Amino acid sequence: MAKKSHFYPVILAGGRGTRFWPLSRKRRAKQLLALDGKQTMIQQTVARLLPLAPAKCFWVITNNDLRPAMLRQLRKIPPLQIVAEPAGRNTAPAIGLAAFLLLRENPDAVLGLFPSDHVIAQPHQFRATLKKGIALAAAGENIIVLGIKPTRPETGYGYIEAGENAAGGAQRVRRFTEKPDAARARQFVEAGNYFWNSGMFLWRADTLANALLEHLPKTAAILEKIAADYGTRKFAATFRKLYPKCENISVDYAVLEPRSARGEEQSRIFCLPANFGWNDLGSWAALHEHQVAKSNPANGNKLSASGSFALNGKNNYVYAPGKFVAVVGVSNLVVVETEDALLITALDQSQDVGKVVKYLDEKKLNKLV
Amino acid sequence: MAKKSHFYPVILAGGRGTRFWPLSRKRRAKQLLALDGKQTMIQQTVARLLPLAPAKCFWVITNNDLRPAMLRQLRKIPPLQIVAEPAGRNTAPAIGLAAFLLLRENPDAVLGLFPSDHVIAQPHQFRATLKKGIALAAAGENIIVLGIKPTRPETGYGYIEAGENAAGGAQRVRRFTEKPDAARARQFVEAGNYFWNSGMFLWRADTLANALLEHLPKTAAILEKIAADYGTRKFAATFRKLYPKCENISVDYAVLEPRSARGEEQSRIFCLPANFGWNDLGSWAALHEHQVAKSNPANGNKLSASGSFALNGKNNYVYAPGKFVAVVGVSNLVVVETEDALLITALDQSQDVGKVVKYLDEKKLNKLV
Repeated sequence: MAKKSHFYPVILAGGRGTRFWPLSRKRRAKQLLALDGKQTMIQQTVARLLPLAPAKCFWVITNNDLRPAMLRQLRKIPPLQIVAEPAGRNTAPAIGLAAFLLLRENPDAVLGLFPSDHVIAQPHQFRATLKKGIALAAAGENIIVLGIKPTRPETGYGYIEAGENAAGGAQRVRRFTEKPDAARARQFVEAGNYFWNSGMFLWRADTLANALLEHLPKTAAILEKIAADYGTRKFAATFRKLYPKCENISVDYAVLEPRSARGEEQSRIFCLPANFGWNDLGSWAALHEHQVAKSNPANGNKLSASGSFALNGKNNYVYAPGKFVAVVGVSNLVVVETEDALLITALDQSQDVGKVVKYLDEKKLNKLV
Repeated sequence: MAKKSHFYPVILAGGRGTRFWPLSRKRRAKQLLALDGKQTMIQQTVARLLPLAPAKCFWVITNNDLRPAMLRQLRKIPPLQIVAEPAGRNTAPAIGLAAFLLLRENPDAVLGLFPSDHVIAQPHQFRATLKKGIALAAAGENIIVLGIKPTRPETGYGYIEAGENAAGGAQRVRRFTEKPDAARARQFVEAGNYFWNSGMFLWRADTLANALLEHLPKTAAILEKIAADYGTRKFAATFRKLYPKCENISVDYAVLEPRSARGEEQSRIFCLPANFGWNDLGSWAALHEHQVAKSNPANGNKLSASGSFALNGKNNYVYAPGKFVAVVGVSNLVVVETEDALLITALDQSQDVGKVVKYLDEKKLNKLV
């Protein structure tokens, strides 16, 4: 079992989360919002990992728009470890940078990669699973991915096809698949050996660094140069100059898919089935469903308001905290009000809210994005 | 033809208009709102009558909650002629009081009774019709009601059954009917000789006073006493003390129905068919329909907002003047936002908005009503 101090949580927090507009904005992305409970999503992410690693071991990869708010929300994490990418380059460069930086700090470092904006209903169970994963990752050149048992034929996620059983409750990974169509998603759920790719990974820093040197050598070389300047006066300039030259590619596409193509024995990628009430809250509809499951409000009407009255309507999500809200004869709606904007959409269309942000971007309505 | 100075518009402005909540409130009833255009409903009502009578001939009957705003909005009308009823007693006492007051001022007065919260698209046509009606009313003991040619089998209005043709384009009234059910409403529309009761009447003050003395003698006696004190120091006290003793009854029920039972020859009630783009704006849905007909917005989305974006949705009414409004994948909705409240309803349920106000009344949420 890895010693606690070898585990370094790396939180990927550069996403924009446009589907939570108008609450989410460029400088107040989804991970910075208290969508579910009093803490923000990223504060919850840190809080549930703190029993596994001291705050000084945390790294947060974000961008310049979001970093000021991150610093305010995450006071325990060393500010220099809240790193703003000079330009977004998807997950491979982001976690690669973390690997090369950590290698210099601790040659036995085990990295845990975590999205910053998911909910996990059972944090104890989450940590128990992680402990198993950390041990597996620490043991050698293994790559551990946390797989979520699918509960519906979701077409919005990547899937992991699991193969042979391995030690510690893990299964060898046979294949990663991109987002399937509805028919294939149904097959996956029925087959029983498919898991949702949670985006949570565990591996030793040297395993990850070596994988990048092998599969993405140009980007790996850039990241090594950046890491070499960390802690010196040159770092900011080097980072700003070199990082944008990294390839814009996800770790799944850059490393995991080519590696898994070697076959489940050779690739050393393991899926750790995870069952801890995971929800990525991918839309207002997902948030509504999650909160209805938790608090079971009358007729499924989740009304965040200063008083409310609902007549002949069900299954609505309304967020207007300062107002009295009256709902008459409507169902399956999302209405979200902020100081400067009002969103009205159907639950089953709420994945399209990002298109509003796209429109606002195009029209350069910068105050609203 | 009546001289101009004999015509006295009496505007009934005591209604609460709860179906326009949350915009309408106890002290800001529908007639005080600029629902359609820059002027408020009552300002429009006065403006379209001013070519027919000087401001000093106008009377407004309202209540104490609304009178302060009326005084602010109607600066041309003599303040003493904006009368607040001490208690609401329906239309018979309200217009009866006007009749007894005007009789003292001008024995040849012709009263026009007008609701304060309807729209009329063609004011020239309206005035042309009124001039004919005033002449008919001035000529003797005639009662003139403006009838609207029905355009749909509306069940929310009373109907007038017209009989024999009379002078000046009028028709004798055969019968007043209460709000019909859907089947009868369809028959009325098909029959061709039925009109909606617009609530607009014309009669000489003495004709109205005599009718009340005959059909509602107790109330008429009270109103005579109140009118006798008008202009003296005792008026306020007399009014406050006696007016609540009047019967709570509409002029339709108290006078027009019993009178019309005498037969169309004897009753001397005439319907003047009116065709001037009348709409009573009885609900958010009616307002939406009216505004869509006027301005023909894209996909029937009438969005009063500070910028808007609509995607895959049609036929919505949104009022949120200070906000950017985004509508995604929803149709046939009404959303109205004020500083302290947010209403979400379906167009075809918007007549139930009054139930929200009922709820707020019951819960004594006085700030919201």
